[in-house]
Formats: sequence, structure tokens, C-alpha cells
Amino acid sequence: MNRVDLNCDLGESFGAYRIGNDEEILDFVTSVNVACGFHAGDPSVMRKTVELAAQKGVQIGAHPGLQDLIGFGRRNLSITAQEAYDIVVYQIGALDGFLKAEGLRMQHVKPHGALYNMAAKDKNLSKAIVKAIYNIDTDLILFGLAGSELIKAGKEIGLRTASEVFADRTYQSDGSLTARSEKNALIENDDEALAQVVRMVKEGKVKSQQGVDVSLQADTICIHGDGAHALEFARRIQGSLTTSEIEVKAISS
Amino acid sequence: MNRVDLNCDLGESFGAYRIGNDEEILDFVTSVNVACGFHAGDPSVMRKTVELAAQKGVQIGAHPGLQDLIGFGRRNLSITAQEAYDIVVYQIGALDGFLKAEGLRMQHVKPHGALYNMAAKDKNLSKAIVKAIYNIDTDLILFGLAGSELIKAGKEIGLRTASEVFADRTYQSDGSLTARSEKNALIENDDEALAQVVRMVKEGKVKSQQGVDVSLQADTICIHGDGAHALEFARRIQGSLTTSEIEVKAISS
Amino acid sequence: MNRVDLNCDLGESFGAYRIGNDEEILDFVTSVNVACGFHAGDPSVMRKTVELAAQKGVQIGAHPGLQDLIGFGRRNLSITAQEAYDIVVYQIGALDGFLKAEGLRMQHVKPHGALYNMAAKDKNLSKAIVKAIYNIDTDLILFGLAGSELIKAGKEIGLRTASEVFADRTYQSDGSLTARSEKNALIENDDEALAQVVRMVKEGKVKSQQGVDVSLQADTICIHGDGAHALEFARRIQGSLTTSEIEVKAISS
Amino acid sequence: MNRVDLNCDLGESFGAYRIGNDEEILDFVTSVNVACGFHAGDPSVMRKTVELAAQKGVQIGAHPGLQDLIGFGRRNLSITAQEAYDIVVYQIGALDGFLKAEGLRMQHVKPHGALYNMAAKDKNLSKAIVKAIYNIDTDLILFGLAGSELIKAGKEIGLRTASEVFADRTYQSDGSLTARSEKNALIENDDEALAQVVRMVKEGKVKSQQGVDVSLQADTICIHGDGAHALEFARRIQGSLTTSEIEVKAISS
Repeated sequence: MNRVDLNCDLGESFGAYRIGNDEEILDFVTSVNVACGFHAGDPSVMRKTVELAAQKGVQIGAHPGLQDLIGFGRRNLSITAQEAYDIVVYQIGALDGFLKAEGLRMQHVKPHGALYNMAAKDKNLSKAIVKAIYNIDTDLILFGLAGSELIKAGKEIGLRTASEVFADRTYQSDGSLTARSEKNALIENDDEALAQVVRMVKEGKVKSQQGVDVSLQADTICIHGDGAHALEFARRIQGSLTTSEIEVKAISS
Repeated sequence: MNRVDLNCDLGESFGAYRIGNDEEILDFVTSVNVACGFHAGDPSVMRKTVELAAQKGVQIGAHPGLQDLIGFGRRNLSITAQEAYDIVVYQIGALDGFLKAEGLRMQHVKPHGALYNMAAKDKNLSKAIVKAIYNIDTDLILFGLAGSELIKAGKEIGLRTASEVFADRTYQSDGSLTARSEKNALIENDDEALAQVVRMVKEGKVKSQQGVDVSLQADTICIHGDGAHALEFARRIQGSLTTSEIEVKAISS
Repeated sequence: MNRVDLNCDLGESFGAYRIGNDEEILDFVTSVNVACGFHAGDPSVMRKTVELAAQKGVQIGAHPGLQDLIGFGRRNLSITAQEAYDIVVYQIGALDGFLKAEGLRMQHVKPHGALYNMAAKDKNLSKAIVKAIYNIDTDLILFGLAGSELIKAGKEIGLRTASEVFADRTYQSDGSLTARSEKNALIENDDEALAQVVRMVKEGKVKSQQGVDVSLQADTICIHGDGAHALEFARRIQGSLTTSEIEVKAISS
Repeated sequence: MNRVDLNCDLGESFGAYRIGNDEEILDFVTSVNVACGFHAGDPSVMRKTVELAAQKGVQIGAHPGLQDLIGFGRRNLSITAQEAYDIVVYQIGALDGFLKAEGLRMQHVKPHGALYNMAAKDKNLSKAIVKAIYNIDTDLILFGLAGSELIKAGKEIGLRTASEVFADRTYQSDGSLTARSEKNALIENDDEALAQVVRMVKEGKVKSQQGVDVSLQADTICIHGDGAHALEFARRIQGSLTTSEIEVKAISS
């Protein structure tokens, strides 16, 4: 039987600022990526998020980002590979403090936003990031874009990896995501999105914007947690997967 | 034979900004308190500091502070006990990331600046701080002001504690430090400072500003690492202790 | 005919984070206090807020706060009077950049949160704040708690002042607000709140929690802009004032 | 008689962190670029810097940078043109607060670090930056790299501009600076550097790394203020210019 993990970003609130329906979305996912205070999140939000995820029995991962709170970690920043290593170690460590305090184990690490996107194409950055993860704990699982430099680097250093696919994004013939600046970057029709997800998991294939079938590994699906539609779509994606006899469970379980 | 630990703050540089003679002072101390990025320090500085301390065989502790970089963590901030817990867990975790990446173990935790001073007198704050340390790792040693609420709370929860004394500060009859705003808060004569330190370690006593002998526990002595005089004084204090047949070694050794 | 100004805090969003119903609340107030990037707000939010307020013809003031984004500027911080001067000059200047770029004039300055509350009781802090305002522009109007040290200091230096009252807070016999930590700090019944406001403006009096009538100056009323109830209450307060033949207009008009 | 302005960056300290010999370098320059709190500087440093420059009779400009304190504003960040406009307005305004409080007028604006370098080649970014300056005060003078997109955009919008050259950097045949990553980017021999500066000012020419004479406008020369050598070099450059009958005076005088 096929299986897949459903992950979403969590704990993105900061101080008096609230983002996301953290409590509700936890009912639909099997793994969460917790912001670590650089692009989003703060120590109190991290503690509450860890407690919440633990209560719901959902696996927890670190979601390290660039030190750019005002840009939510979405703006490319020309950091060195060494700086990437340092900020990833710091953020994994910080989140792990809260997990240890609760007697929990971290499952995975997924870089956030611009760090995720830059690493997808940058071998050196990817090597620094996977080294940070590996040096802290060789049992951590790396989440990265399917077919990316990050996943390659993770395999090379000896980390277990989970290739991530997106339900609501379209793909190019080289397996990359259509850039958000392009038309048709997003799949706006839910039924199409659901069909694409099911096919990626069952067949390991996706039809590119150029009309060609592209092979890709689908270990975990990224869904979003903010917006009313997000919850509804999460519910539907879980339903579709189950109906298609795909087991939805955490990577590590 | 009497023994004592010599500690100093380390890793207080930030980005392009340099503070302290980190490399030189390491020759004179047995434990260092590493800034964790809130009041000082950054991920790259933390990594280098951990590497440096490890090379010199000096024990490493976390030095969590208030989130007040511009005030260097020295300004009182009315945080809740829960916030104190959260920022201490976060910062210990972050530093521990670098220690784990190097295969090292953290020895101790010493709150910094205003957090240290507020906790010295505030039972609730102290309880939150020691709970954070204890929940992460019951083997961590708590460094706090001799006779403070922090040390009391640490003992109560079951942590090993190290009572800290100051070489260059004068004391009041209740065992507290003379406030920096007062005249005579600092001992400016090195010989007097050295004599005070030796007596605190050997006899567990210090003469207060009121002329009374006060009992106090001296497990570790705080010295400073910035300024040319700091290095010279560190050298002399180490010499005085050795001459007085006091063994200078890390708390945990 | 009696008159009063209605003010509210605006522009408190930050990066990807949204707070408040800025556009809607502008229909009910005559003056807005714009966050300046320390406790809330960022350069892009400030620009948009200034544009929005100008479109609606509402008077604009600076709302400088403590450099404590994570605490939303609500936590007391032991700053010096000189630091207070410096952060107020900086923030007024920053907001004034956006006003000048739009060809607008700043009407007033109202310190935010903990800075407002600390200044209300601290003469030295108040003197530093009013000096900052006065040095930048002697025509700026100071908004401060009715009867506070801040208003006194403003008058002394020669600034025009606007004494602020609160619709939904109860008062003590010395004219101070009942602390939020106390029971009955907030008036939860809207009708009582509206009656209190009208009486403060028309009679210059408020019944304290101790049952005594207290005299107080009511030049401007602070209302809140976040939450669905806030808009409804803003609508009702405006209605009550008009019905009571109190003219609602900006301080400077 | 030829004339030129000598400028240097100032006020780059932050909180407890000190950078630069601000007081000493002021004796050798005619214009200073004051950090505005984003990449360096803080409100208290800005106030002191403005006071110091005013005492020495040196002209003051704003030195806005990217919001990247940890990277000192030297790392490229993919900001939008609108974000560039907003952060430049904010920072000019903030510094202007201190100037107004002292009864002074701002002379110029010079973007810092990565913002300066990105704008040199990016027309849209340049247009946003010059619009920010122009909207605040049409009399402000724009400092930018000689021959850059920034200078072109400044002229187009109607700002007075000052083309900046570097004493200790080598040039390419297209008039750009040799990248720091290349060998020979820096002129290490002081005599060569001084000869290059004098020729740029007197003849408007510089010999490129390819051995070709390149025309370039030299209105202001950038010198550095940190390091013991910086002061000595500043002294020598001033001497060389005077000996060569080049008048050293501020752009606006």
C-alpha cells in the first residue's frame, strides 16, 4: 500500500502577532515544521506549538529560516555556506530545547522560504545545511524539494531524506516548480490539485506545464495552514488520499 | 585542599562588532559563559567560541540574557516567569546545538546581566529559570550569585549549584553586592581584590562595607575578559589562588 | 459647545503580520497615533498608514514606543532619560519622513504602552520625552494621560497638550487609572462606558472606584481599533457624543 | 582651482559595541555619512554623532542601509523597489529628527553597502531610492558611485548629485570598481593610491586594470575611518590634495 506524509508550517506567530490556524490544521497533518524565531516564531510560541503538536500526536521538525523577520524569510539573502551552517545549527538547537524539556524527539528539519529555495539550486549551501543537521543528530530526517540539490546533499552525507511535493503548484519539465512570477504557477482548481497529488504519490509522476510526464519522488506533501480555505483543502486532501488507498502517516512512523 | 572555579563571559561579539579578548582570557579561566544571541553573540560567534573553548579544554556553559541587544541585556525588563522560562530554554537549546555538533557536553548555565540580577531577588523568576534548566538536562550546573534566590531555587529543584563571588566588587552586610550606583561599589586596588577573593574561598567570609564579616559560599569567581587590565588581573588572580594553595579547576572536574 | 478629539492607535502591523482594522476605524476617529517601527509597525506599514489617514482626512501623530517588538512595547524597561529622549527623536523623525514625502504635517506625539505608563509617573522620563518633541517642532501637540507627569512636563516646556481619557477604563480617587491587574479595571458595560465618557467631556468629572467625583481634563478619548466589537463601540461612542451635543473634531482643527 | 569633498562613514557603533575612530577622523573629512540604525548605529549613537560632526563643522548626510545589523548591511537582499523607497524614507527621516533637534540641515544621502552596490547596477532600485530622497527634500544631494545607475537616476529626477570615487580601489575599463573577490581590487601602496586620487580629481581620469584611461567624475572621495592606518592615510590624502592645489571642501559649501 502506498503511503505519504502530510506536513505544514506551524508556530509562525510572533509576540502579539497571530498567523495561522495552528490548532485546527493539526487534525489533518502528520508532521509539522516549527518556525524557530528567525523568520517567524518566538520562544513562547515555540513552547506552545511543541506542546500542541505533542498533544495531537503529530511529529515535530525544525523549520529554520533566514534572519529576516520583516520579510518572513522569503527574500533571498546572500549568506555564505558557513553562515547557513551556523543559523541552521542555532535554530535546530533552540527548538530542540523545547522538545527536550517535554521529553520529545525531533523528527525532521525542513529549511524555510528563501533558504529552502536557494538551497534547492545551490550545492554549497545545501552541503552546509545537511552538515549542520547531520552533526547535531544523524537520525534527523531532511525534508527538501523533490529532485533538489538539498535532497542530493542529504543523501550524500548519509541522512534519511523525505522528498517534498506540492499539491497546489505546477511543475516544469525539469522537475522544478513553476516560478510564482509565472502565470499558471498555482493550481487554482482543487480537483486538479487533488488529482495531481494522488498521481504523484501512486505513480511517482506529474504532468509538466509543457505537457510531459516527469518522474518525481513524493514522500511528503506540503499543505498550508492559514486561511479558511486551507483547512477545507486539508480536509479534502486527506480524504482523497484515503479514498485512493494511500496511507497518510508520518515519515518516521 | 581548597578549590575554586574561575569563570568569565565569552562570545559577546556580534556580526561586525568585536568585544573582549576571548582567545587570551581562555588561558586563565576554567569555565566560560557563552552569550546565546539575545543580549550578545550570534550563531557564527557562538560556533567559533565553542570551538575555541574546546581547544583550550575549558568547560562551557550557556549565558542566556534578555532579548535586548541594544542594552546588552543590562536593563531590567518586566518579563513574566513564563517568558523567563521560554527564553532560557531557547538559548540553552541554541548553544547546545553547537556543543552537540562538536560532540561536547554543556557544563552549566549562568543567567546574564539584568536577568541574573532580577532573579537574584525574585523567587518566581528564579523558579522559572531553574525549571527551564532542569527540564532540559538535570545534570546541568546552575551558576548564580552566592546567597541569592536563584541559588535557593536551584537547590530546591535538585540542580547542582555553584555560588558565584566577585573579585572586584564590595559587599553589604546582608551578603548582597554594593549597587554600582553607590560609591565604593568597585574595589579599585588589585591587592585588596585579590586578598578578598582568597579569603572568600579559604574562609567563606567577606568583610562588608559596614565592617562586619559576612559568610558566603565561593564556588566560582567571576572575572572579566575585556580590557587590557582584565588579562593582567586574571593572571594575578590565578597566581594568588595558586600561591594560597587553592586549586583552580572547573566545577564539574 | 463642548468638543473632543477621538484618537486610536494605527499602523501596528509588521511584515507579514496584520493587526487591527485600520481602514474601518478611520471612519470613527479624528486623530491617529502611528506606530514607528520599535514596538510595532515597519517602514512599509508606516507609508501605507500615512497615505490611508491622509485620504480620510484624519490628523496624524507619532506613537513612539520601547524597542521591544516581541513585547509590543508593553513591558517596562529601565531606560535612562537620555535613552528616552533619543528613541523619541528617532521615531518622530522616522514617521515625519513619510509625512514630508506626502507633503503633510504631523499633528501630535503620544508615547506608547510602557513608555506612556512609565512617563505618567516619572518626572525625569517625562521631561526627556517632552524635550525631544519640543526640540524637533515646538508646534507638535503632546497627547498624555490626563493629570500625568507627562502632561505637566509638556506644559512646563511650552508644548500644547491634549489630556487623554479612556472610555472603557475605571479611575481611582487620585485620578489614576485602575491597574489592569485589579478587578473592575475595565468597564464591560458599553452604556456605562458611554455615560462616563460624556460626563468626562461635559463636566470634567469621573466617579472613581471609591465613589468619589474626581476632576479631570478630557481633550481626547482613546479608543481601540482591533476586534469586531471595537468598531461597533467606536460607532456608538461617536453617536453618543454627537447626541450629547459634543463636537468630535481633531485637536488641531 | 579644482575642489573635492572628502567623505567617510560615521556613527557605526551600536549599543555596547564600538566601531571606528569617529572623533579623530572628523578632522580630515568635510562630509560624513551617518548610519541610521538599520545596518549599524542606534538612536543614542546617532545623536552623539550629529553633535560631534556639528562641533567640528563637518557636513552631515544620511547613510541608509538594509535592515541587516548582523551582516552590517553588506549582504545582498532581494528587496522590492517599494521596500527600498520605504526604508530610505524611514532612515532619512530618523536621522533628520536629530538634525532638526539641533537646528541643523542635512546635506546629503548616501546609500550604504549592499544597497549602494545593488543600486549602482539596478535602475529600478535607483529610481526608488532617488524618489525617496527627492520627496523628502529636493535640496538633498545624492552621493553615489561615479557612473552608476544611481547617479543617473538622481540626475533624472532633478537631484543635485556628487559622484564618488575611491582612493584605495582599482577600476575596470567600463568604469566599475574591480570586485573585491578579484586580485588587485585594493591598492595597497599608499603613494599609488594618492597619485590615483589626485589624477581623478584634476584630470577626471583613472588608469584601469586593463591599462586604459577611463573618464570619471570625482566630486567626493570616500575614505575609511576605522583602523590606525585609516587616520594616517586620511592625513596623507588631505596633504596630497592640498599640495596639488585641490581645495578640500564640502559639496554644499
